[in-house]
Amino acid sequence: MDYEGFFKERIGGLKSEGRYRVFADLERHAGDFPRATRYDGDATRDVTVWCSNDYLAMGQHPDVTAAMKTAVDRCGAGAGGTRNISGTNHYHVLLERELADLHGKQAGLLFTSGYVSNWAALGTLASGLPNCVVLSDALNHASMIEGIRHSRAEKRIFAHNDPDDLARQLADIDPGRPKLVAFESVYSMDGDIAPIAEICEVAERYNAMTYLDEVHAVGLYGPNGAGIADREGVAHRLTVIEGTLGKAFGVMGGYIAASDALCDFVRSYASGFIFTTSLPPAIAAGALASVQHVRTAHALRAQQRDRVEQVRRRLAAAGLPHLDNPSHIVPVMVRDAKQCKAISDRLLGRYGIYVQPINYPTVPRGAERLRLTPSPLHSDADIDALVEALATVWAELGVQCAA
Amino acid sequence: MDYEGFFKERIGGLKSEGRYRVFADLERHAGDFPRATRYDGDATRDVTVWCSNDYLAMGQHPDVTAAMKTAVDRCGAGAGGTRNISGTNHYHVLLERELADLHGKQAGLLFTSGYVSNWAALGTLASGLPNCVVLSDALNHASMIEGIRHSRAEKRIFAHNDPDDLARQLADIDPGRPKLVAFESVYSMDGDIAPIAEICEVAERYNAMTYLDEVHAVGLYGPNGAGIADREGVAHRLTVIEGTLGKAFGVMGGYIAASDALCDFVRSYASGFIFTTSLPPAIAAGALASVQHVRTAHALRAQQRDRVEQVRRRLAAAGLPHLDNPSHIVPVMVRDAKQCKAISDRLLGRYGIYVQPINYPTVPRGAERLRLTPSPLHSDADIDALVEALATVWAELGVQCAA
Ligand SMILES: Cc1ncc(COP(=O)(O)O)c(C=O)c1O
Ligand SMILES: Cc1ncc(COP(=O)(O)O)c(C=O)c1O
Repeated sequence: MDYEGFFKERIGGLKSEGRYRVFADLERHAGDFPRATRYDGDATRDVTVWCSNDYLAMGQHPDVTAAMKTAVDRCGAGAGGTRNISGTNHYHVLLERELADLHGKQAGLLFTSGYVSNWAALGTLASGLPNCVVLSDALNHASMIEGIRHSRAEKRIFAHNDPDDLARQLADIDPGRPKLVAFESVYSMDGDIAPIAEICEVAERYNAMTYLDEVHAVGLYGPNGAGIADREGVAHRLTVIEGTLGKAFGVMGGYIAASDALCDFVRSYASGFIFTTSLPPAIAAGALASVQHVRTAHALRAQQRDRVEQVRRRLAAAGLPHLDNPSHIVPVMVRDAKQCKAISDRLLGRYGIYVQPINYPTVPRGAERLRLTPSPLHSDADIDALVEALATVWAELGVQCAA
Repeated sequence: MDYEGFFKERIGGLKSEGRYRVFADLERHAGDFPRATRYDGDATRDVTVWCSNDYLAMGQHPDVTAAMKTAVDRCGAGAGGTRNISGTNHYHVLLERELADLHGKQAGLLFTSGYVSNWAALGTLASGLPNCVVLSDALNHASMIEGIRHSRAEKRIFAHNDPDDLARQLADIDPGRPKLVAFESVYSMDGDIAPIAEICEVAERYNAMTYLDEVHAVGLYGPNGAGIADREGVAHRLTVIEGTLGKAFGVMGGYIAASDALCDFVRSYASGFIFTTSLPPAIAAGALASVQHVRTAHALRAQQRDRVEQVRRRLAAAGLPHLDNPSHIVPVMVRDAKQCKAISDRLLGRYGIYVQPINYPTVPRGAERLRLTPSPLHSDADIDALVEALATVWAELGVQCAA
């Protein structure tokens, strides 16, 4: 076995498929969102970022950055241990309370990331409940899939956003078995939204638990930014709401909000929660300040919606194909890995506009896209520059595509 | 199925076994290591922490905290995306280079934690290499076990730190199959150290890759703090060295250092690397400053060794049973979950000394302990106070134990 040869060959395969990933090396400018410096070898250049998940620019909010610096001054850099062994800091405790309150649940439980929260919580629930069956939406995120896979529980996939298919599958399962329905509210790549009430309705009929990933919704939807379930008044019907502190809240970390007993169970049994250094005090403090601010940041949310509408209108006027959806995510469809990368490269190189091409396995082959995420701080001029550059590059490269 | 009832019952079981975990709610004092404020309901009290994995107190080092605050001012709070989608920041790039250099490898690859680095790297290597067999030390950390389990590759456990058993098992495997030997340098609970050269020797004989977790060694051992493999001059013989930025480096995050092709392979295929928001700029900047400082912090390492020796001497003089080992970890053996917790509670309540009881599943049942981690900043007076309090409580509670 020639290990190096094997790795090189697999990398070569990615390159020839046009989906080898080159990371843009950036330095975001606090106070000047959405601008960043891009490093390219020895050269640097200022660029406008159009694909960040710091959806509300909270990552540069003065409350958040001040809270982080204060926590660094008071408590230092890291937590110094796992949650159980000297690594619980008071900011964790306050943040868990805040998150429970945000979602109207008894308890919150922090993880080092949204990925780990899904993986650890789903893995622990589905393996801990004896003989559990997991019903998983066909388009669930990798972190949920891996958590379910990890549990070794029986898994059934239901058709994407389809409560009828879910009902059919639930009807098939022994009523005595524990059942867990796992799905998302806003799907991050297509930006479509789950029929949460209908899914809860079906789950309740069959006494199934529900687990909702609101990673792309927390901060953005609902009267207090608690997500889509909050907006639709159904948060109390969900067993578990999962979210991230790394997207609209602008920092890092993940969490679940649920009953005291459920959180205590996951806290006590989840390997991915127990055996890892906890989030630094400054990260928890920044996230806490962010959640507190965002809960009442109605104008910020309105401004983001306005920017999203504006981008959609301008793309439509320019004849650029984008998926219509009821969320803040604007996918411009290219449907070819190499062409997607070529457009992105030209936008970056010629116009200083950075939109990462999204390719397989993040989206299916043939669904390659540029995923735009307009923030409250993208100006009219930014939108003009984007749409004009995109239209030019589109024509130059002769992109053929049916949205 | 009564879900709430089930969770409550499982929690009740933990309580009756005496291994329900209560987290100490702390606020560490930057500039006053190892002191922290402990929150207890509405009351607070200052305590001395004796169980942190911030082994060198780098979490409060002015270079580290200053680097974090500068990065917050320049770049804001979070990274704003996954590594591929706008979330690579220049500090990540610099830190990956620094870590590669630290370990004398071609490349470094960052993860959100040491846990995720083990889980994702081992999972991806063992599932990616066709028909791979993993040889795993019997006492490997949960994160390694989960990564191997995740890969669904065949796993064989070799006797702890036993190159002969490893050789026997390797001899049994078809020479054409890819093989991966996974082990640690310093085992975190017993503090014993692997015979790395002998294990490499055996692995080389059978053309197996080697994966070494140096989580409890990086920063602490070797001429540049690169770990035990560095100290023994065998770093070049290991295929992968894995480490954390959350223990001796005092911040948060994990990494692997290996060949360009191997890191590129993991970077391109590991779900746990790809589908998650990357480390905040401030975390990467703090870790970079820490690694740079620690590489030449010979006096700090010497001072830590001195404190460790002093603690061992004083424990021995007081007749307190502790595992002898060649590392910086001092396990005081209690061997009973309830008594371990009782000692810890009394140390905390009466003496303001915080040492978390370590129980199952972190250590086997019957191996419960207080795990002391002396740092360069624990003073003679701290050591006196610890040993005196421990001896008093030990006698009061009539602890019976054979070390
Ligand atoms: C739906 C969904 N869930 C979970 C995650 C993981 O969250 P985090 O980035 O905090 O790890 C992501 C993206 O990263 C996601 O898109
Ligand atoms: C041996 C070992 N490997 C990996 C880890 C995980 O590292 P991190 O705390 O950075 O997640 C730990 C402890 O947390 C550990 O003890």
